[in-house]
Amino acid sequence: MSKISTNPPSGFRDFLPNESANRRKIESCIRSIYQQFGFQEIYTPMVENLTTLLGKGGGSENEKLIFKILKRGEELNRSLEASSTELADLGLKFDLTLPLARFYAKNREKLSKPFKVFQIGPVWRADRPQKGRFREFYQCDVDIIGSASIGAEVDCILAIAKVLETLGLENCEVHINDRRLLQALGKNEPAGDWQKALILLDKLDKLGQEGLEQEFQKSFGRIPDGIQKIFAFSDSDFSALKEASNESIESLDSIKALLTATSKVEVKINPTLVRGQDYYTGTIFEIRHKDLSGSLAGGGRYNRLLEIFGSEAIPSFGGSIGFERLCLLQESSDANENKKPTAFVFFPLFSEKTREVTLTAAQSVRNKNISVDVFPDPVKLGNQFKYADSCAIPYAVVIGESEIATQKAKLKNMSDRTETEVSISDLPKILENLCKKNQ
Amino acid sequence: MSKISTNPPSGFRDFLPNESANRRKIESCIRSIYQQFGFQEIYTPMVENLTTLLGKGGGSENEKLIFKILKRGEELNRSLEASSTELADLGLKFDLTLPLARFYAKNREKLSKPFKVFQIGPVWRADRPQKGRFREFYQCDVDIIGSASIGAEVDCILAIAKVLETLGLENCEVHINDRRLLQALGKNEPAGDWQKALILLDKLDKLGQEGLEQEFQKSFGRIPDGIQKIFAFSDSDFSALKEASNESIESLDSIKALLTATSKVEVKINPTLVRGQDYYTGTIFEIRHKDLSGSLAGGGRYNRLLEIFGSEAIPSFGGSIGFERLCLLQESSDANENKKPTAFVFFPLFSEKTREVTLTAAQSVRNKNISVDVFPDPVKLGNQFKYADSCAIPYAVVIGESEIATQKAKLKNMSDRTETEVSISDLPKILENLCKKNQ
Repeated sequence: MSKISTNPPSGFRDFLPNESANRRKIESCIRSIYQQFGFQEIYTPMVENLTTLLGKGGGSENEKLIFKILKRGEELNRSLEASSTELADLGLKFDLTLPLARFYAKNREKLSKPFKVFQIGPVWRADRPQKGRFREFYQCDVDIIGSASIGAEVDCILAIAKVLETLGLENCEVHINDRRLLQALGKNEPAGDWQKALILLDKLDKLGQEGLEQEFQKSFGRIPDGIQKIFAFSDSDFSALKEASNESIESLDSIKALLTATSKVEVKINPTLVRGQDYYTGTIFEIRHKDLSGSLAGGGRYNRLLEIFGSEAIPSFGGSIGFERLCLLQESSDANENKKPTAFVFFPLFSEKTREVTLTAAQSVRNKNISVDVFPDPVKLGNQFKYADSCAIPYAVVIGESEIATQKAKLKNMSDRTETEVSISDLPKILENLCKKNQ
Repeated sequence: MSKISTNPPSGFRDFLPNESANRRKIESCIRSIYQQFGFQEIYTPMVENLTTLLGKGGGSENEKLIFKILKRGEELNRSLEASSTELADLGLKFDLTLPLARFYAKNREKLSKPFKVFQIGPVWRADRPQKGRFREFYQCDVDIIGSASIGAEVDCILAIAKVLETLGLENCEVHINDRRLLQALGKNEPAGDWQKALILLDKLDKLGQEGLEQEFQKSFGRIPDGIQKIFAFSDSDFSALKEASNESIESLDSIKALLTATSKVEVKINPTLVRGQDYYTGTIFEIRHKDLSGSLAGGGRYNRLLEIFGSEAIPSFGGSIGFERLCLLQESSDANENKKPTAFVFFPLFSEKTREVTLTAAQSVRNKNISVDVFPDPVKLGNQFKYADSCAIPYAVVIGESEIATQKAKLKNMSDRTETEVSISDLPKILENLCKKNQ
């Protein structure tokens, strides 16, 4: 039989048991903290109609990122015969915000107002795979739909900051800015030019201020006035920015004061912050850590996204945690830890004759909510213990034919290989006590 | 702006907060019981190379069920120009077994032997959507790779039975059969005919024995000898089947004896059980409940699946729980229960002036691991309490301007609307005690 490749597709990943456990741990942490803030979880399907994903129209940057699903059966044949380029009708979702907007527009009558919601799950982007960038990755979004107040900003950012703190990332910096400020700063520029200027500004981290100024000279022949004001900004001098948009600066000041008063995060008003999505209409934010490059989380206010589903404008704010980033950080900090046991007790299998007694004893221990692994095959005992060691299981119970005759099992401590004799009927109680001590 | 449909694609579903919580609860239950049996969780990507999914070759029944992903960029253009029908390179996984086989073939050196593994997650099938059949649905697979012993059968079936019991589905019936028996019964028939006979036999549930006999007369002009033996089988008379395959009957007898001795399930040897997948090579099983039609779980032994990835034959056994079925059953049994609270305490917001004190108090309560929902907007208090009621939150803490002046908040029981006055600084302790009492 010809061999089929065992690799996952390029940009996609398998996760081994240790990696999977790490991911589940982080996912659970995020879920429980979002719930601690009163957010409710929802699911939307992984697949959406292409018309939904393309939203405001095809040909956008997003369209290139979508994994499109081929039409099927007769519909595909019709498209092929008509030499239509519309060969796909569905696509994999590329973020969680657009499906949320569709979900809300459809189900709003059944949802609380405002709707405090979170989602954790995979999204897909047909990016060129590269180090640290994957085609299937998790997002963890938290959103408040139906609040125009900065209370929404503060609630979402506090929840995300709490997640990062709980995962050991203390001393995070929250960078905040406001799209209304960025728009106001460009009010004297032609709209297209200003759009381009902001896309350039977004590259500040990569190019540095000097490199960016050179880019502006190259593309614009000058440094636009609004960009100069942004560069001239310092933490103590807000005057030029206030002049452009007093409303934004007041809002940013309030958010900064509230976050500082109620959490340990450091907050910086950062007028160079742009963020890519074109649906943002107000506050935008990013959470960074001084020891790490790039951002750990980010988001913003999107007051008009619901309109594309025929709904009136509904003020909304949301943020997202960089799940894959957190997993990598957590893995490297876990690297020195020992392997996590896959079970608390191991029951090797002596022979076919001992199978029923062994299984019965194992089940009686499981009934105490203790995890028990029974070896399926009566192979050499040494090999069975090798397996238990590879699974880091701390205790083993040996029931051979002579143990059945005396009704006494051997309880083995796998780390020091010491054994004690215990009555088979006492096993559930003894192991329950051991398990409590080990917690 | 033209309105975009708010519906998910046909056959795909949104899940509201209550439904999502129900699904998460069942998922957690399954995970913790699989772990209690010493199984380790892994993830494989949602997307696989088409060559992996098509496995033994295209044109199979499975191929029609695959959602295929369109090639992208230059590759797509080349395929279109060449009028190639190979427009897709990737596909959504249609089950969890094939990706597991690929995963194991790739990573076996890093995995314990045998490898006790579970997976919980979505799969996709391009079936025609109908009541209770969806195009995106969850599977919850548990497998032991690398054991030829009936210990694998017993371990997987016990774990699945424990899940069903824990979810309130007691008195389940485990139906077991063996593909080796079915093969032996057809040894005098041409292979193609017997294959067709088994596909017909699989329809017994739908057609009944009489209807099935008519079908056999129609298609075969007779009832094949092997099928007659199956129909003639009764719980007390194994002789004809033993004659065909003594090995199978002995194996089934042992599995039945072990399951019966170590759990509450009822076990039936059922030679009419076929199950669809063509990769099964030995034991097959299904779990049914007498009050419900169809099956709740099923699986079987697949000793040769790894071969398609160039590996030697590796004896394996696995089973899967019908997650969507369980969710529907659980939902209807939960229908009479009250809505689950989204948080334990609600902090309404009086005015912009009280925002900081309110948030600070809320954060101090959250630090006790209590879930707290703060309203983001200082709207009419009546509307805020309506929101809290819609979220079924049992307690509220009111901090208005006069409460700030006296440093005493009002603690409100939302069910009887009674209020007590408590010091703002005592809130964490008082609510912690209330929370413990309510558990």
